[in-house]
Amino acid sequence: MFDLKAYLKAKQQAINAALGKLWDNSEPYPTLLVQAMRYSLEAGGKRLRPVLCIAASEAVGGSEADVMPAACALELIHTYSLIHDDLPAMDDDDLRRGKPTCHKAFNETTAILAGDALQAAAFEVLATEGRNKRGDALKRLEVIYLIARAAGYLGMVQGQMMDISSEGKEITLGELERLHRLKTGALIEASVQTGAILGGGSSQEIAALGAYGRHIGLAFQVADDILNVEGTPEMLGKPVGSDRAHQKATCPSLMGLEQAKVRAGELIDSALEELRIFGKKGEPLAALAQYVVERTR
Amino acid sequence: MFDLKAYLKAKQQAINAALGKLWDNSEPYPTLLVQAMRYSLEAGGKRLRPVLCIAASEAVGGSEADVMPAACALELIHTYSLIHDDLPAMDDDDLRRGKPTCHKAFNETTAILAGDALQAAAFEVLATEGRNKRGDALKRLEVIYLIARAAGYLGMVQGQMMDISSEGKEITLGELERLHRLKTGALIEASVQTGAILGGGSSQEIAALGAYGRHIGLAFQVADDILNVEGTPEMLGKPVGSDRAHQKATCPSLMGLEQAKVRAGELIDSALEELRIFGKKGEPLAALAQYVVERTR
Repeated sequence: MFDLKAYLKAKQQAINAALGKLWDNSEPYPTLLVQAMRYSLEAGGKRLRPVLCIAASEAVGGSEADVMPAACALELIHTYSLIHDDLPAMDDDDLRRGKPTCHKAFNETTAILAGDALQAAAFEVLATEGRNKRGDALKRLEVIYLIARAAGYLGMVQGQMMDISSEGKEITLGELERLHRLKTGALIEASVQTGAILGGGSSQEIAALGAYGRHIGLAFQVADDILNVEGTPEMLGKPVGSDRAHQKATCPSLMGLEQAKVRAGELIDSALEELRIFGKKGEPLAALAQYVVERTR
Repeated sequence: MFDLKAYLKAKQQAINAALGKLWDNSEPYPTLLVQAMRYSLEAGGKRLRPVLCIAASEAVGGSEADVMPAACALELIHTYSLIHDDLPAMDDDDLRRGKPTCHKAFNETTAILAGDALQAAAFEVLATEGRNKRGDALKRLEVIYLIARAAGYLGMVQGQMMDISSEGKEITLGELERLHRLKTGALIEASVQTGAILGGGSSQEIAALGAYGRHIGLAFQVADDILNVEGTPEMLGKPVGSDRAHQKATCPSLMGLEQAKVRAGELIDSALEELRIFGKKGEPLAALAQYVVERTR
C-alpha cells in the first residue's frame, strides 16, 4: 500500500529546502520586502501544487530534481495569490493558516508589493533554470507560457475577479464551476502539466495528466467549500463559515452538502481514470487525488 | 538631421497597433478585468520602454518585428506598475496622464487584479513568441530572466518599496539614486538589453546598450523630478508639486534645481558615449536619450 503520509512529508521537506535557498540572509536580500515574501511563503502551506508537479514528473519517468525550480515557482505564484486575496479590498481576511495575513503582519503597501514581487520571482526562477541548462529551452518556454496563462486574466486572476464580484449575488452551478476552474483549477492543472512536460512525458501522457489536473482542481474547490461548512477553526486556520459570512455561493449552498460530497467523489473517480496508463508510477498521483478531497489540514 | 518626432510617432503607432491586437473584442476577452487592463494600457503613455527596445534592436541590425512582442510585454509590466503605484495604499493618486487612475475609474479590487493580470500577461506574451519560433529559445529565456529580475524584488518592486517607505524621511543622494535605479532604471535598462539580445547583438553591443540604458534610466528619473517642480499640470497630467506634497526626497530637493539639471546632462553625455560603436545606427537611441530629459509630455 502506498504511504502517502511519508511521501508528502519527504516532498514537502525537499520543497521547503529548495524554497529556503531562493533567498538567503546575505545582502541584498534581507529587505523588509523579502521578509514579507518569506513570511507568507513560510507560513506553512501544504505545498500541494509543487508536490503535484513533482509527482507528475515522476509518473512520466522524470525526476524530482528535473522540476524542483518549476515546482518552487508554482508555490511562489500560489503564495502571491493568497496575499492579494486576503487584502482589505479583496476578502479582507485577518488570518491565514492560523497566522496573521501578510497585510496584518506588515501593512497593506508591503503586502501588495510582496505579492507583486513573488509573481515576478516565479518567472525569474522559471527562466533562470532554463538559461543554465541547454537543450530543453523550448520546453521551459512552454511551461512559462502555461503557468503565465493559468495565473492571469484567462485563469486565476479572472477567477478571483468573478469570486469577488459574485459575493451576495445569485449564481448558477455552472457559473460557480467556471469560477472554481479559473480561480483554483487552472493553476493546479498547470502544475501537473508542468511536471509532465519537464519530466519528459509524451504528448499522450501530458494530455492525460492535464485532464487529471482539471478533475482534481475542481474536486479541491468542492472539498474546500465542504470544509468551510464542516471543518473546525483548527482545520481551516480561519473561522468556520466565512463563505457564508461573505455571502459566497458554494457547492453546498447550491446543491446541498450531500450532493456536493457525491460530486467530489465523481471528480476523483474521473481523475483516477486518467491515471490508468501510468500503472504503478501513477500511485502517488492517485493517492494525492484522494488526499485533495480528504485533507483535514 | 534625425527626425525623432516622426520616428517616435511611427514606432508608437506600431506599438499601439500590436498592443491592441493582444485582446480583441471577442469572447472571452471583454470581461471587466480586461476592460480595466485595457483602460490603463490605452491611457496614452509615451511607450518609452517599447520604443527603446525597438531602437536597440535596430541599432544592432535587428528589426522591429523581431522584438515587437517583447516590446509589448515591457509596456504591460510598466502599466501594471503604474496601476499599483497609484493605489490608495501606495501613492493614492486620483489622476494619471490626465485621466482617472484605474482604481478611480473602476475600483480598488479591480485595479489590484488588473495589475496582477497585466504582469502575468507580460510573461505569457514573452513565452508565446518563443514557443512559435524555434531556434532562439535560449535568447527568449534570457530576456524573460532579465525582465523578471528587473521587475521584481531586486528591481522595480524594491524601488517602489523604498520610495513609499522613504516618504517624510531624510535620505541621502546616494540612497535616492539607488531608489531611482531600482524603481525606474532597472526596467529601462532591461528594455534596451531586451532589444539588443533579441535583435542579435554581440556581447560587446549588449553590454554597451545596457550601460546606455542605465544612464538614461537615471536621467529619466532626474528629469521627472525636475518636471514635478517646473512642469505645468498639462505637461504632467497631474497636479504640480505632488512630490513635495508627499514629502518625497527628489534630486532638486537634495541638490538644488540647477545642479539637478547639470546631473541630467552628465548622465545623457555618458549614455551618448556608449553609442559610439554603433555609428549612424545609434542615431535614434541618441535622440531618445536627449528626449528623455527634454520631454514635455
